[in-house]
Amino acid sequence: MHKFWLKCLKCGRVYSLSSKWIWRCSSCYSPLDTELDLGKVTIPRNYPGIWKFIDVLPCSEKFITYLGEGSTPLVIREFRGVKLLLKLEYLNPTGSFKDRGSAVTLSKVLELGIHRICEDSSGNAGLSLAAYSSSFSVKCRIYVPRDSPESKRHLIELFGAELIECPSREVAYREATCAELSGYTYVGHLWNPIYIDGVKTIAYELALQLRELSITDFPSFVVVPVASGTLLLGLAKGFRELKQLGLVSSDPIYVAVQGTDVAPLARYVKTIPCEGSSSLLDALRVPNPPRLSQLVDVINKSGGLCILTNNNHVIKALKTLCKWGFVVEPTSASVLAAIEKLIDYRILESGDVVFAPLTGSGLKVTYLLLKLTTGSC
Amino acid sequence: MHKFWLKCLKCGRVYSLSSKWIWRCSSCYSPLDTELDLGKVTIPRNYPGIWKFIDVLPCSEKFITYLGEGSTPLVIREFRGVKLLLKLEYLNPTGSFKDRGSAVTLSKVLELGIHRICEDSSGNAGLSLAAYSSSFSVKCRIYVPRDSPESKRHLIELFGAELIECPSREVAYREATCAELSGYTYVGHLWNPIYIDGVKTIAYELALQLRELSITDFPSFVVVPVASGTLLLGLAKGFRELKQLGLVSSDPIYVAVQGTDVAPLARYVKTIPCEGSSSLLDALRVPNPPRLSQLVDVINKSGGLCILTNNNHVIKALKTLCKWGFVVEPTSASVLAAIEKLIDYRILESGDVVFAPLTGSGLKVTYLLLKLTTGSC
Repeated sequence: MHKFWLKCLKCGRVYSLSSKWIWRCSSCYSPLDTELDLGKVTIPRNYPGIWKFIDVLPCSEKFITYLGEGSTPLVIREFRGVKLLLKLEYLNPTGSFKDRGSAVTLSKVLELGIHRICEDSSGNAGLSLAAYSSSFSVKCRIYVPRDSPESKRHLIELFGAELIECPSREVAYREATCAELSGYTYVGHLWNPIYIDGVKTIAYELALQLRELSITDFPSFVVVPVASGTLLLGLAKGFRELKQLGLVSSDPIYVAVQGTDVAPLARYVKTIPCEGSSSLLDALRVPNPPRLSQLVDVINKSGGLCILTNNNHVIKALKTLCKWGFVVEPTSASVLAAIEKLIDYRILESGDVVFAPLTGSGLKVTYLLLKLTTGSC
Repeated sequence: MHKFWLKCLKCGRVYSLSSKWIWRCSSCYSPLDTELDLGKVTIPRNYPGIWKFIDVLPCSEKFITYLGEGSTPLVIREFRGVKLLLKLEYLNPTGSFKDRGSAVTLSKVLELGIHRICEDSSGNAGLSLAAYSSSFSVKCRIYVPRDSPESKRHLIELFGAELIECPSREVAYREATCAELSGYTYVGHLWNPIYIDGVKTIAYELALQLRELSITDFPSFVVVPVASGTLLLGLAKGFRELKQLGLVSSDPIYVAVQGTDVAPLARYVKTIPCEGSSSLLDALRVPNPPRLSQLVDVINKSGGLCILTNNNHVIKALKTLCKWGFVVEPTSASVLAAIEKLIDYRILESGDVVFAPLTGSGLKVTYLLLKLTTGSC
């Protein structure tokens, strides 16, 4: 086991990772982050998927909870003169990047001997946690907003988790954090500090993949959808560590994508506005992400910004992605809508290299996709 | 370009691969197979996914049609004392192993300058070909039986292919082969000789993955669902080549899985029978596979057999796979139903190592899966 600890982002209090599950600072109730001594790490190790990077994960080799997560394809496309590095995160086992966070979470849950866990989710994070919980015989309860996509709720039930429907995403969050009173450990990705370590493996994989393909153009922009922000924070943490390890030399500019309906970042970072509903972006509805100030910090320090998108832009992007052969859910298509806008505003220019993960599978919503892209909606 | 040619499996006539698309022997109308000089191949090459094995694919480096196919996870599970090597083929880009065949096909189609292609399919092969055709701007027409799963038909349309619904799988096949009269090149996987080369990359990946994980137990059994038979034939070709290359030392026993409703193999190979409908196995309905004698030959020479399954067995297997965290379609679960039977009959014994690809994603049919596994169907 490598040297890992938890640190409060606000008051700096330090916690051990090895005795019990801690999801927020017990002094000031702020989010925690893991810290790691990068002195002695070997990358990659001879394990599959994200576990190649176990030396930078807060996990023990005795608890490798592998269901196929990680090692997702990197596909390169030219788009209006810009080089897109698209990482097909929707080809993770349950159809989204959340599997990286769930795998690391379950590993820790098993190590700590925890038997019951719960989380709040708009869908993908919940069904992913349900799958990993089922596979490793941990009891799981998921709180979802009532209007989350039906197929995602079906999957949560399919994996044998207890599904609790709530009037809104906010209520789901409140209820989940209270479930500790009935013996459930709250591992929700909004707070879970080790979730971000699972997600950061995307950055490590990208670095390896570019090296394998002898591609020397490291992306100057990273464009990602932001709800709770684990994806953006995970990537930023990964790139930061890679730089410390001497594996990459530059810092990318972070561009967050949010929908017009729920856009908590817009007040705190430079934002390209937009009108019209973003109701299709069902996975981007976290009005008060606990890690908001952390997100703002990463984006602003990088010289980045926030792009707002709406249904029309997302549908156009979905059509392009289908044309390219990629089946993603509407929320995932928002990154291409944002890239389009970055080109329109000449923030992205010909020759720029952009990294964009495609986060969630569209196979769960084929009927909706067909309706949207053929214009019968 | 490496030395590749086509050879008739019946009369031995040889064809070139470099001038035009040929899908059957023009002398005796039998299926063709590719042959390859294995003298000078490098494995793996520095390309992603299946293209690591381009030296054993009938494709040119100028036409690498990569959408993320291949490099699928290998997950190991103990099941009633047997070690299962499960390859998650449903995590290919369009949700099935067919993407391997489609990628190789599109590569050749582009190399030969073909602009219009067609194929018959129960769903997965068709939607996969539609995705690759769309991505590389080739016009595509897919003939499907009218009762193929709705979501698969949605996906074919989503990728902009022309969807032709036919009264049955047999009629779809006849119609597709006749479309050559209207200028479409028939690339249907039932006949397509290079499709099998795409599929054989599963065997190459397995060999690499076992080596990377320092696993020395090579599988003694290979259990796969059989409709047209490309999966079984692709694996058998892959393992044969790996043996010639000195990369593996033993031959596995091939076990084919078919449904009780459509079981053309049952007359020609040792078969463990079964009663009851197999209507859930929608992807296993090819009553007269053109490569039947080739399949019979591979299975019998290996000392293998055919296992028939029905809906009840498949539902039980689906439940187990969900419990393990894998979301597959019913047809894919048939391999676990077959493995269960092989253990019951003591053909598989404690300590045996079995290779089983999980072929198709269940994300396309979440409602059906929930109905089946919760017993409300």
